[in-house]
Amino acid sequence: MADLCERASRISSGTVSLVGAGPGDPGLLTVRALELIRNANVVLHDHLVTREILAECKPGARRIDIGKVGHGPQANQTAIEQLLISLARAGRCVVRLKGGDPLLFGRGAEEAMALRRADVPFEIVPGVSSALAAPAYAGISLTARGIASTVAIMSGHCASTGAAPTSVPSADTIVVLMGVANAVAVRDRLIASGRRGDTAAAVIEWGTCAQQRVAVGTLATLPEVLARGGLHAPAVIVIGDVVGRRAMMDWRSDSGDTILSRSRLNAVQQPGAKT
Amino acid sequence: MADLCERASRISSGTVSLVGAGPGDPGLLTVRALELIRNANVVLHDHLVTREILAECKPGARRIDIGKVGHGPQANQTAIEQLLISLARAGRCVVRLKGGDPLLFGRGAEEAMALRRADVPFEIVPGVSSALAAPAYAGISLTARGIASTVAIMSGHCASTGAAPTSVPSADTIVVLMGVANAVAVRDRLIASGRRGDTAAAVIEWGTCAQQRVAVGTLATLPEVLARGGLHAPAVIVIGDVVGRRAMMDWRSDSGDTILSRSRLNAVQQPGAKT
Repeated sequence: MADLCERASRISSGTVSLVGAGPGDPGLLTVRALELIRNANVVLHDHLVTREILAECKPGARRIDIGKVGHGPQANQTAIEQLLISLARAGRCVVRLKGGDPLLFGRGAEEAMALRRADVPFEIVPGVSSALAAPAYAGISLTARGIASTVAIMSGHCASTGAAPTSVPSADTIVVLMGVANAVAVRDRLIASGRRGDTAAAVIEWGTCAQQRVAVGTLATLPEVLARGGLHAPAVIVIGDVVGRRAMMDWRSDSGDTILSRSRLNAVQQPGAKT
Repeated sequence: MADLCERASRISSGTVSLVGAGPGDPGLLTVRALELIRNANVVLHDHLVTREILAECKPGARRIDIGKVGHGPQANQTAIEQLLISLARAGRCVVRLKGGDPLLFGRGAEEAMALRRADVPFEIVPGVSSALAAPAYAGISLTARGIASTVAIMSGHCASTGAAPTSVPSADTIVVLMGVANAVAVRDRLIASGRRGDTAAAVIEWGTCAQQRVAVGTLATLPEVLARGGLHAPAVIVIGDVVGRRAMMDWRSDSGDTILSRSRLNAVQQPGAKT
């Protein structure tokens, strides 16, 4: 079993790790992500990364909430890329921690390309996406056999402008990330593209987190579902017949209780820690 | 810091956990999955789950390779569900370990519904899907800004019959899982649905594993790309303009070397283990 010194030697200084923090439940963090967070000198994180995960940073590590840096979205992004590069060049072991998966929307690719252009060594650590995990916690299988054999994921929110998307995908099940603010536009575009208004739809607020809530309606009533439930971002929207199967495999109450108790990060012991 | 006894108390006997093993790289296993595997009495696993992950089972735990049970696919599935139910009723702590994410294809939903009908308590532990992780390891961002704002995932292989899918999705980027055997049919259906034959395509064999290999061509030449590269299942196929961006963020050589060394599970110490 590797001890702390061996472990630390496998995480190099002067590098950036683009890491997915998963959908919220700390138990869904990957082993590699946890290892990197525990060893980083600097963690630049999205605003939504949970406190429980950030608490894994080592004492003295610098934590920068990217949600609070800069003003315009474009200036922000350039500033983040420059900060990653300069921290790595100063010899820091840097973790760029993004909600869900680092490359599914959210501009991880731009950061990777900036690092490559600057010749800064980097690693990408995929994460569990909320597009899949939030439905799973809500008892929805995106590809339930006989009902859905294809799934498409879209963002309801353009990263640079915040506008609704101009094109929508076509698949048996549609998952919309960051779609709350533009729910009316997303609904209208899906219906205009041929999707039936009476298709079942679910909204999952704070998916996989203790405070997860789920509301169900149809594509046509999506704005009402949001309003009636008082649901806000962050939320995952699922549109498709699979939503109707929910009662057949639901396993977790909206109050956050689970049939099995949830894991916590401290269940995975840190080498060198006192027990 | 919780010790082994506390930890074990939070994993109940007489229950089944439907767990995603991730795409292959053991570092992409989730913290909760690792915890459950280490505490299970019985692990029923897909044939593709890696040896490194299975080595985490505790001494004396029973490991059942589901790839070797039964004969026909349908008999197989019913037998698996019955086995999960009877093991849980016998008081075992059961892990059903599936490659990638347990609900994205692969019949996890059917197992969840069978458990619910039988009143067996169960938990679902989403995993990192190879649909997202294999492209990330190949330097492909499925939703690179300005190039792709939607992504669709399809299976090239019907779970019950093995046949090619009858419908194909529409999105900027298409990811095909289990598509090697039916590559010609998948290509023909995508082209028939309006996808241009000269759209860039990549095949990622053993994505995220040490033996990962990547080959690139076009949708039209997909069968030739597979043949020329000698690529076999398991493989993830990516179709879309994002493939053309690969050189701009590639970070991992096909030989399995990475810029940073990869994590191994033994970097996360098992409580109670000698160091």
